[in-house]
Order: sequence, then structure tokens, then C-alpha cells
Amino acid sequence: MIAVCGPHEADQDERRLAEAVGRLLAEAGETLVCGGRGGVMAAASRGAKLAGGTTIGILPGYDPAAANEWTDHPIPTGLGEARNAVVVASGAAVIAIGGGFGTLSEIALALKLGKRVVTLGGWTLDPQRVTRLSRGGAALLVARDPAEAVRLALGAARQPGHG
Amino acid sequence: MIAVCGPHEADQDERRLAEAVGRLLAEAGETLVCGGRGGVMAAASRGAKLAGGTTIGILPGYDPAAANEWTDHPIPTGLGEARNAVVVASGAAVIAIGGGFGTLSEIALALKLGKRVVTLGGWTLDPQRVTRLSRGGAALLVARDPAEAVRLALGAARQPGHG
Amino acid sequence: MIAVCGPHEADQDERRLAEAVGRLLAEAGETLVCGGRGGVMAAASRGAKLAGGTTIGILPGYDPAAANEWTDHPIPTGLGEARNAVVVASGAAVIAIGGGFGTLSEIALALKLGKRVVTLGGWTLDPQRVTRLSRGGAALLVARDPAEAVRLALGAARQPGHG
Amino acid sequence: MIAVCGPHEADQDERRLAEAVGRLLAEAGETLVCGGRGGVMAAASRGAKLAGGTTIGILPGYDPAAANEWTDHPIPTGLGEARNAVVVASGAAVIAIGGGFGTLSEIALALKLGKRVVTLGGWTLDPQRVTRLSRGGAALLVARDPAEAVRLALGAARQPGHG
Repeated sequence: MIAVCGPHEADQDERRLAEAVGRLLAEAGETLVCGGRGGVMAAASRGAKLAGGTTIGILPGYDPAAANEWTDHPIPTGLGEARNAVVVASGAAVIAIGGGFGTLSEIALALKLGKRVVTLGGWTLDPQRVTRLSRGGAALLVARDPAEAVRLALGAARQPGHG
Repeated sequence: MIAVCGPHEADQDERRLAEAVGRLLAEAGETLVCGGRGGVMAAASRGAKLAGGTTIGILPGYDPAAANEWTDHPIPTGLGEARNAVVVASGAAVIAIGGGFGTLSEIALALKLGKRVVTLGGWTLDPQRVTRLSRGGAALLVARDPAEAVRLALGAARQPGHG
Repeated sequence: MIAVCGPHEADQDERRLAEAVGRLLAEAGETLVCGGRGGVMAAASRGAKLAGGTTIGILPGYDPAAANEWTDHPIPTGLGEARNAVVVASGAAVIAIGGGFGTLSEIALALKLGKRVVTLGGWTLDPQRVTRLSRGGAALLVARDPAEAVRLALGAARQPGHG
Repeated sequence: MIAVCGPHEADQDERRLAEAVGRLLAEAGETLVCGGRGGVMAAASRGAKLAGGTTIGILPGYDPAAANEWTDHPIPTGLGEARNAVVVASGAAVIAIGGGFGTLSEIALALKLGKRVVTLGGWTLDPQRVTRLSRGGAALLVARDPAEAVRLALGAARQPGHG
């Protein structure tokens, strides 16, 4: 299972990248987990569903109807922003597309949990600081396009003991 | 999606009831969500999978490998006991089988969230107090067997606006 | 630190009991932690403050102004009902006064975490089942009045290694 | 109440800055909330306590004894990394000193919640992106020394409706 993170308010480029990422993950046989809402999350879920994949949305509130229409399994948590920690904990690796503050928190929480994070647009962080801090499987990689993002994420997910 | 709650340490009777509940939920086309671990959770997930259903396990820790082998989608949360609130928030209704203190917390949290809870063995609570406190769709119903438990749970889940 | 649990909507008797419990905890030099809202929570906090004690309120939402006026330190969590797990985790022992479903969830979560729980009115649970399930320091004790409730709670809190 | 964030593993410079921040917050009459552990958290709490202040530590695990010795009120949550969301939700403003991935997640979560964040060393983020994304009272300010950090944080905390 791969987590895809990105903002609820996304521009057309970000949505296009997210849809391609979702499609490629589904084609690779991976389940997609995300925050279940609009923007990047809806576009990635749409891409996955149109390619026959499976999608899970970890929602901040209690209403499953707040999930986007491409979510197979809405998980309403009621946890507010703390649900971001659950989204990234659920992925063997994380792909972050574009991004607001919520996305940045997910990048940081995933790195803290020792996950590989692949960014496609959006936040850039001081690479030396990131490398110095990384423990376990933590790594922050920059992808140039959706295919590279998915390839890098799957590389982490399919190493033994990735969890 | 229906949540099934019950203890990690369960006796043979509880596991048998849980497996039947899982099977009947799958035959009714419902996804099963539970705490993802052993005992009642594993037995219900096994029943669902053997009948071709889908299972989600919301885990207390960060290791997806802690999920039982019948879990399609492990959701490692790292939330400890607070993950119980996520399990019940994810179900349109809750079936509680047997039960320890964790199960009792899930019954209570589900009722607090206005969900219908069906018990099959295990905890009994003062019915007058429960009725007086119930708001929204909250109700605590006692089932005599797995078929009745699933029928009562589906009755809640398929009412409009159950979420 | 002792946790006091009870409903936001409480009758006069419950509020009177809660205020006495808060006062006695403060006189014993204990900090009071609770859910920070009205009813039993406000009455217990008022009792503690009028006796010179310290109070902490673990709130379900993000607004510190939702805390009752007797709360020294509001902790807004945004966690919704999952904050109940934090309230009981914060107490060396728990006193539950009266109670709705939220209170019942706190009793159950505290017992699951191995804490001593003292009830004053409210929920009663099958004592044999509770005893059979109890691990570590978990125990459910019934107090007849505020003085006994505080005495029993302090007995747990002041044993070595109670945490 | 002001939140102070920073890594458990901190160098001498970071600890010196943190202790000065803690002292200045206490002298200004503010309660300090942090993650309750070592490094920056312990140094800030030490500074606050030596100046007569009050300290609260929101811990990731269940053991209150994991709090540093300068913590008046340990809040064991059992929430793992999700406790970072509670730390920043509890502060009217946030001061981040040095920092690892956990600190970065706290900066991001605080900005998402509309808080003012003051950094003292550590992470730098693209200021244009931050400004474009900021809603409500969210702002990311860079302080040159502890006195400026505290002054900027108090400026946010003492505006009406800061919560």
C-alpha cells in the first residue's frame, strides 16, 4: 500500500500529476491510501479507480460522506489534523504531490517514521539536513514525473521489511 | 462497512461466533473493519475472506505485519488504545462479540458517536440507562446468534444517513 | 495526577459529588485532569480551584476557549472522542462520577491501561467479568461518597510504579 | 501557553537557546508546553522551572516517568507521533528550536492550524510558498535570538482571538 499526499485545494497541474500517479500505482497492483478528500487526493483516487485499483481514504472528521467519490473504503477518524500521522503510517512509502502545510506535515511524519518519501513538485527541503537526520529507511527523493515517482516509491515498498 | 469488535484473547465459542459473523457480512456484500489483531478479530476476518469479502484492520501500532493473515488492508496507526475510536468511527454499525475492556470501550465510543451496536455474548449494560442516554441512531441491541447480529447491524447500516 | 470523568450534561447531585471530589483532591495536593468541559468536569475543576488546586482540561476540539472557567491549563487536542484515551492515560487513577457513554468509554479505556477506576454513581459492570479481565493494577471499585472515592484513588496513585 | 518544539537529540547550542527561551517565557508569565522528553524539550523546561514557571509535557507513550525531570504535568498520550498535533494545538504560538523531522511536522501542523510559528535555527522553508499558503493567524517568522523568539511568539499569543 502506497500513501499519496497533497492538498485539498490543488491546481490543474497537480491534479493531472496525481491522476497519473494513481493510475500507475493501480497498474502496478498497489492499493492507494490518502486523506480521502478533494484536490490531489481525489485526482489520485480517480486515477487508481479508472485503472481498476483499490483506494482507501483516511478522513479527518466523522462523516464518511466527506470522502471523494473515488474512495472505496472511507475511514472516518474524527482525529482532525492528527489523522495525517495515520495516512503516512499506512503507506509502505509516500508520494507527495504539490502541497500545503498538511502535505509538509505528512512528509515530515513519514520521514520520522523511517519511510521513503518521493516528492513531485511542491516542498523542497535542505538535502544535507535531511540526509543527516534520516534513520532506517527514511529518504527524501525528488521525482521528475509520475512514472519516476511511482518507480521510486515501489522500490522502497518492495524491499524486505519495509513496514 | 460494518465494524466487528472483540478481544485479542478469545475462547473457541467467541471465535466460532466471530467467524460466522464475518462470513455473513461478506455474503451480504459488506466490508468488515476491525482492530486487525487476533482472537475475535482474526476469526471474523477469516470468515469474511473465506466467503470472498474484504477486510480492513486498524492496528494500534506501526507495524503492518502485526495484522492477522486475513486482513486485506492493514492500517497501522501508532495511536495505541485511541485506535479503538477509529475502528468504531469507521463502521456504519458495530457488532461486539464477547469482549474485554477494549471491546467495552468500543461499545461505549460507538454509542457516543450515535451508532447502533449489536452484542453477541459479552458485556451487558443497564438497558434503561442506555435508552435514556441514546441520541441519534445510537442503540444497544442483543443478538442471540450470528444471523440475528448481522441482520440487526445491516438494518442500521442501510437506513439513509446512517453515517 | 488523578483523572475525573463524567458527563457534560450532569444533574445537580452529580455536580455536587464532583465538586466535593475536586476539593478533596486539591486538599490532598493532587492535580486534577479531566475533559475540560461542563457538567461533572466543570464542577470537579471548580472544587479543585476553590481549594487552591491545579486543573488540566484535555479538550476534544481545537478551541481553548471551550474549556470551563476553572481550567488552569486547557489542552485542545482536535482528536474528537479519541481524546478520552488521553484523559485516562494522564491519570494515575480515575474517578468516574455518574456518566454517559463517554464516561463508560473512559472507564473501559482506563481498565485496559491497567489503572484503578473508582465509580461514584453511574455505571455498574459485572464484577466477576471485571475481576477476571483485570491485569496489572486494573481494578473497578465502587465508592459510597466523595471521601471514599478520593481515598481509594489515592491508594492506587501512591503505590510505587503506578504509572 | 506557548509550545516549544525541538529534537530529543540536540547539540549544546540548541539546548542553550532552548533554556533561554524557557526562562524568558516563564519570566513573561507564560506556561510552557512541549513534547516532554529530552534535548530541546528538557532544556526549555529546565529554563522555565529555574525561573519559577510552569511546564507541561505531552508524551508519545503511556509512561509518565518518560518525562524529563523539569516537567510539572506529564500528559502521557500513547498516541505515538500523532501527539505532535496535540503539542502544537495546545500552544497559542509555537517556538521551534533546531529540529529534526518531528520538529518539522510540528511547524507544519501549527501553520495548518493557523498558528504563528517562530524558528530559532533549524528548518528554513520557502518564504513565498509559506506566505501564499498562510490562512488565519498562520505565519512563519525567523528569530535571531531567544529574546526575539519570545517577543514574536508573545505578540501572537496576546492578540485577541488567538486560539
